[in-house]
Amino acid sequence: MEKIDRYPFYVEPFHVDMNGDMFLGILGNHLLNAAGRHSQRRGWGIGTLNETRHTWVLSRLSIELEAMPRQYEHGEVVTWVESVIRLFTNRNFAILRPDGTPYGYARSIWAMIDMETRKPCDLLTLYDGDILRYVVPEAENVCPIAGHGRFRFANPRHVRTIETYYSDADINGHVNSIKYIEHILDLFPVERFRQQGLRRFEIAYKAESYIGDSLWFYVQDVDDRETDVEVRKNGAEVVCQAKVRFR
Amino acid sequence: MEKIDRYPFYVEPFHVDMNGDMFLGILGNHLLNAAGRHSQRRGWGIGTLNETRHTWVLSRLSIELEAMPRQYEHGEVVTWVESVIRLFTNRNFAILRPDGTPYGYARSIWAMIDMETRKPCDLLTLYDGDILRYVVPEAENVCPIAGHGRFRFANPRHVRTIETYYSDADINGHVNSIKYIEHILDLFPVERFRQQGLRRFEIAYKAESYIGDSLWFYVQDVDDRETDVEVRKNGAEVVCQAKVRFR
Repeated sequence: MEKIDRYPFYVEPFHVDMNGDMFLGILGNHLLNAAGRHSQRRGWGIGTLNETRHTWVLSRLSIELEAMPRQYEHGEVVTWVESVIRLFTNRNFAILRPDGTPYGYARSIWAMIDMETRKPCDLLTLYDGDILRYVVPEAENVCPIAGHGRFRFANPRHVRTIETYYSDADINGHVNSIKYIEHILDLFPVERFRQQGLRRFEIAYKAESYIGDSLWFYVQDVDDRETDVEVRKNGAEVVCQAKVRFR
Repeated sequence: MEKIDRYPFYVEPFHVDMNGDMFLGILGNHLLNAAGRHSQRRGWGIGTLNETRHTWVLSRLSIELEAMPRQYEHGEVVTWVESVIRLFTNRNFAILRPDGTPYGYARSIWAMIDMETRKPCDLLTLYDGDILRYVVPEAENVCPIAGHGRFRFANPRHVRTIETYYSDADINGHVNSIKYIEHILDLFPVERFRQQGLRRFEIAYKAESYIGDSLWFYVQDVDDRETDVEVRKNGAEVVCQAKVRFR
């Protein structure tokens, strides 16, 4: 089987912001779907994994865009596994126009966990290391954006607290990965998106939160284009951290 | 050209609630997309209309479901125009499984407005009444759910106020039609969805709100399964009204 998959997308009218640019959460959803299908086609999907009580957990996602896909445009998400490092796998994405030119790229890191113990599994030995057959080394397919950055929170400002409701749920009753992206971007005034647009978005998922938890948002400006965001549940445990870079 | 269109959909993992049921907002999005494409294919799409400074405005949407589409299921939205009554057109939908059995049905009412004056146009004379060529009368294709209901607000309780942010926007900077559905359903505890599930949802769009407006939610229980909801912007003008019926 091919190591690289391509999944088409189309930018629907209700999936764009007031600039006509696709919402980043919608793009994130396309990336996660592409990851899910790519795994599934190779026997590494959630369904198969659940039979042996394993599941994928998204740890990091970094998206960098030259331009956002715009309303009514068609594009495709290309995805492949770049490397497997025992407890983690690096999966990359290219987000392309029909003519092959890039809107942008993305990187992600995933762990495989045992659903009983919630502990990570050794990907090199699970299923006799089958996943290694699908690795496309960097030398063969470059993902030309910087790796995941580091967060150094010194004294972030608490700027908002929200409650979580029905629409935030995923199938496990957790707040879903995409909703965090939406809530984080909602911290910024619409004028920022009107005037500057998004250049890069990184998120590190640290812990689960459940519907009914309140989410506390803390921000720290890095410079006039970049802001780090930390999300804590019920004001305490860190749930995720993000880095938002405007143009 | 055929009068009835069929558009396939697939229930993605991030589009389902904690029961594995598709979110109603996602289904609503599929319905509005189907309406948009059906109009567009017949020369009545937003793009064409904007050339003559006209646009469609959604006035009512009522969805009733025997069962919600579930994660990983495939289905299709069938849509047709049932009637045209000078200033309004009635558009219906069937939401079907691949074997043709129904998940449910939906009804909608649309007005055509002049973008300069914001006044409704006479659909029977616009483009020489071209739209009448696509009407499928009720006798030919039945939509077997009740028509849009009436709202009788006596003394509704104010239960929540929310701010509107970037992710709520549509391309015009209004709060988008789908987001109202999400915010309204978020008024109910997740246990209602776990135990009862949604049976019917109606919404009447009355006025636009803009990103930055606050939305005030008022509820009035009709009986133990049905609740009416009124949304007012900045505590004053009514933006929309909804009727939520659980099983």
